[in-house]
Amino acid sequence: MNKHRILIAGGDMRQIYCAERLSRDFEIGLIGFDIESFANHAGLTVADVSFHKYYDCALLPVLTAGNDSNIYTPCSQYPLTADIVRTLLSENSIVFAGKVNTEFKEVFQGYEIYDYMLSEELNIKNAVPTAEGAVQLALEELPVTLNGLKVLIIGIGRIGTALVRILQGFGADITAAVHSSRGAAKARMYGIKAVPIKRLGNDYGLVFNTAPQLVLDSSKLAEFANNTLFIDLASKPGGIDFDAALSLGLKVIWALGLPGKTAPITAGEIIAETIISKLRERGEVSE
Amino acid sequence: MNKHRILIAGGDMRQIYCAERLSRDFEIGLIGFDIESFANHAGLTVADVSFHKYYDCALLPVLTAGNDSNIYTPCSQYPLTADIVRTLLSENSIVFAGKVNTEFKEVFQGYEIYDYMLSEELNIKNAVPTAEGAVQLALEELPVTLNGLKVLIIGIGRIGTALVRILQGFGADITAAVHSSRGAAKARMYGIKAVPIKRLGNDYGLVFNTAPQLVLDSSKLAEFANNTLFIDLASKPGGIDFDAALSLGLKVIWALGLPGKTAPITAGEIIAETIISKLRERGEVSE
Amino acid sequence: MNKHRILIAGGDMRQIYCAERLSRDFEIGLIGFDIESFANHAGLTVADVSFHKYYDCALLPVLTAGNDSNIYTPCSQYPLTADIVRTLLSENSIVFAGKVNTEFKEVFQGYEIYDYMLSEELNIKNAVPTAEGAVQLALEELPVTLNGLKVLIIGIGRIGTALVRILQGFGADITAAVHSSRGAAKARMYGIKAVPIKRLGNDYGLVFNTAPQLVLDSSKLAEFANNTLFIDLASKPGGIDFDAALSLGLKVIWALGLPGKTAPITAGEIIAETIISKLRERGEVSE
Amino acid sequence: MNKHRILIAGGDMRQIYCAERLSRDFEIGLIGFDIESFANHAGLTVADVSFHKYYDCALLPVLTAGNDSNIYTPCSQYPLTADIVRTLLSENSIVFAGKVNTEFKEVFQGYEIYDYMLSEELNIKNAVPTAEGAVQLALEELPVTLNGLKVLIIGIGRIGTALVRILQGFGADITAAVHSSRGAAKARMYGIKAVPIKRLGNDYGLVFNTAPQLVLDSSKLAEFANNTLFIDLASKPGGIDFDAALSLGLKVIWALGLPGKTAPITAGEIIAETIISKLRERGEVSE
Repeated sequence: MNKHRILIAGGDMRQIYCAERLSRDFEIGLIGFDIESFANHAGLTVADVSFHKYYDCALLPVLTAGNDSNIYTPCSQYPLTADIVRTLLSENSIVFAGKVNTEFKEVFQGYEIYDYMLSEELNIKNAVPTAEGAVQLALEELPVTLNGLKVLIIGIGRIGTALVRILQGFGADITAAVHSSRGAAKARMYGIKAVPIKRLGNDYGLVFNTAPQLVLDSSKLAEFANNTLFIDLASKPGGIDFDAALSLGLKVIWALGLPGKTAPITAGEIIAETIISKLRERGEVSE
Repeated sequence: MNKHRILIAGGDMRQIYCAERLSRDFEIGLIGFDIESFANHAGLTVADVSFHKYYDCALLPVLTAGNDSNIYTPCSQYPLTADIVRTLLSENSIVFAGKVNTEFKEVFQGYEIYDYMLSEELNIKNAVPTAEGAVQLALEELPVTLNGLKVLIIGIGRIGTALVRILQGFGADITAAVHSSRGAAKARMYGIKAVPIKRLGNDYGLVFNTAPQLVLDSSKLAEFANNTLFIDLASKPGGIDFDAALSLGLKVIWALGLPGKTAPITAGEIIAETIISKLRERGEVSE
Repeated sequence: MNKHRILIAGGDMRQIYCAERLSRDFEIGLIGFDIESFANHAGLTVADVSFHKYYDCALLPVLTAGNDSNIYTPCSQYPLTADIVRTLLSENSIVFAGKVNTEFKEVFQGYEIYDYMLSEELNIKNAVPTAEGAVQLALEELPVTLNGLKVLIIGIGRIGTALVRILQGFGADITAAVHSSRGAAKARMYGIKAVPIKRLGNDYGLVFNTAPQLVLDSSKLAEFANNTLFIDLASKPGGIDFDAALSLGLKVIWALGLPGKTAPITAGEIIAETIISKLRERGEVSE
Repeated sequence: MNKHRILIAGGDMRQIYCAERLSRDFEIGLIGFDIESFANHAGLTVADVSFHKYYDCALLPVLTAGNDSNIYTPCSQYPLTADIVRTLLSENSIVFAGKVNTEFKEVFQGYEIYDYMLSEELNIKNAVPTAEGAVQLALEELPVTLNGLKVLIIGIGRIGTALVRILQGFGADITAAVHSSRGAAKARMYGIKAVPIKRLGNDYGLVFNTAPQLVLDSSKLAEFANNTLFIDLASKPGGIDFDAALSLGLKVIWALGLPGKTAPITAGEIIAETIISKLRERGEVSE
């Protein structure tokens, strides 16, 4: 088994921490980062752009391949194109990226592509830092304590469950919005209240949405008090009609990229662990 | 929509409480119970055995249809045969029973059979009373406090999760035995430790098993201290080699039928709610 | 510094476990126990009654010195008098006992007497096993789950606080009966509800009392539903009018001697630790 | 009983929220606030400076009476002197202020002075918002999750206990630094670890101090890893040698005025409730 050579191509601080973790086991080269951004991280060096086909693995950030095929490089003054990345990769390389789309697949045709944002391991592990980041936002925005606050959680999957545990520690008064008697049973198991989505009530000080489809449309939003804080953790469309909320004067925070922003080390290590698990699964890394 | 006539045929106190809950919405007849067993439950009456084909629904207990086709009737001095039950049911009756097997299906051929023990709603709802019953057993058996005790939980599904929540309230020192990095991530999310099943360690004062397949064979059991208490919550084969444990002098409690024994009202109501959900699903009960 | 010679004089299994713990650091002699009761506890031996003035420390059980001066010896067929104990003690002995009264002080006049039941360390440590024992009683008596149950706690001192933590793990719906806005603030801090003692309400399934003075008199008790379970953890008069409760048909458990009965090892070790702390304080045991 | 006329004299947003709460029951006049600062708070009006001796109660902020006798007025462009406040108060007025010192007592000689920061009710109620604010700071500063983080808490009084509850919800790995076996017993009761202050260890990612006396001197601080975050919640000297920490390159946040900054509504309401309790105690406000 050969030791992998991994090219870290663009991304934010999360990628730096991910690179640092991977550098314990692999040879790492960075591209798309100014030197200042990783200067105090021992073991990280810039990839030599003349080393054609040198790397057999690439790690790209989430939401890669914009319209201009440029890779997201907030830590660099210079753009980074997919072409440069490709020249550095050997033929059978594996390309790790997040939220891979059709365009990206075309640009990286011929390589094995793995979308780490679809990994169940990553999603389980991300639930806690996402929930912590969401609670941090709530603490920052609210002029009252979470203790005793009426909180509504829409969707009690992984992130919702992680939120429940944290908010119970704060002594919040938590209600889950549920679709079915199964959902109500789950809420009861967690020691929280349940309301059917059709009859939410309106006396919440804080609402978290984790459901990916629209739940709070303008008619539902109109029922809430105007000092309610809404935090939407769902990607793509989200569960809250943002425009309707704005026109009603409600405060909505659309909290995207949370673990990367509020806990970049943990977020970076989770990506690293997911990559290592994937390589291990392929029999390329010993346990 | 006609109001259902439900025949409660055999079972323990759980069935009495279930019947009491169902009697709020339906006409109920009991068979396989001595009058003393339900005398102080208003609204419950004996089914008249001359009312052929009168009932359109039957509720039978868990593990029905023994070798002799007799139904389990611990609250009656007299046996109850499947034949008698059938004579009281109309043609299109729905028969609710738990852990339905092939023999049972043959005996009740022609009726719509619904195994409530396979209902996800029931299993979610049963997790909490099962976990509470298991903790009750532990409190009764152990001469030490759960506070500070090293507890191993094998399997963190529904019951395992419910156990974690309860035991954390006690301040137990909990470790989950896991198969994968996903399991380890889940354990971490719950704020507990994780060990791979291959390297369990041995310094636990209490071990709960919720996994349905054999996990603790004689070689693994031999590693535990001899004052460890084992409580197996899994049905069928269970996760602990009972005979090996006995010959090693270890104390194992095989805790079957838990919610029925330790929280019969809750257990009975859960069965009632599951039946109502099923009938509602068929459009036969309004919400 | 001489190693203490401690005479364990009477008591239940708790004293055996206490003796076992003390035998790690001290020379131990037992009196008032049949041999079978401690046969499988290594390191424990019977005190030789001919060794006059041999011991310099005695440990007696709680509620010692009855009317006939005999010591409580449930693990022995024979009575044990204070006289025998005294003959085995040297002049400057320290005598540890629980709930020491005036009679006891007269009988053991001339010795240094230390009531371990008045030790703050012991009372802090006993709060958790007492609360665990109380929850065990509730689990055994109630035909419903603690999850979702409305529970009233009277008195949120040490034991009340320990109960709150455990019951929150079960997902109980907890209310504290409070006297003042300070009490209400404390309840809110623990994430539970508060009601003034004057307006308790009556829809609780379970009531724990930890307050030492009468709180639930016959007029207050008359308001509760007749399937409410009352568990009184307070000694001496207790907080519940027992006779009134009986005549109202209410179920009251007066749970005395709890940690000793439900967790004898923990209870015994706590007494041992308290004795060691006391001897250490006197500079007689090194840390 | 006359309705009190309360003069709110200076302070930050907390005082505005406090005034808003008090305006439900009392006549309120504000001084030391620009109109913009309370424009959208219904029921609040400026005190007329020509109404000599009109008010019979005054509320001043914490740490009042600086060197120049001016009152702290961050919400006003103009200074506010104690003289102006005095001219508006009738003879038997009660003056509420926080952290009252000798100078202040001289300036307000002849009035009844009540230091609300010494109120036990206020201190119990402030523990939770203080702990929440401290956890918010930790979430903002740390690039890792609280989940799984090794956290040391020095001092488990009110704030320490509130911190434990919140951090347990996050799944942090909590250790309390204790002085005695009583402290260790308390820690065990909360389900957390305990270390003697003499042997703290050094592998913590986060340290909260709530003890008012110096605990972490330069020699102790030198043992910690340099990415440890220290948050000191104790006033006056604090428990951490700030200068030593700085010279060692350690990050220390001295978190003063926490509930006022992070939860001003809750903090203001707590002051209002404390004032109402005090007036009620004097028999001047009905329950």
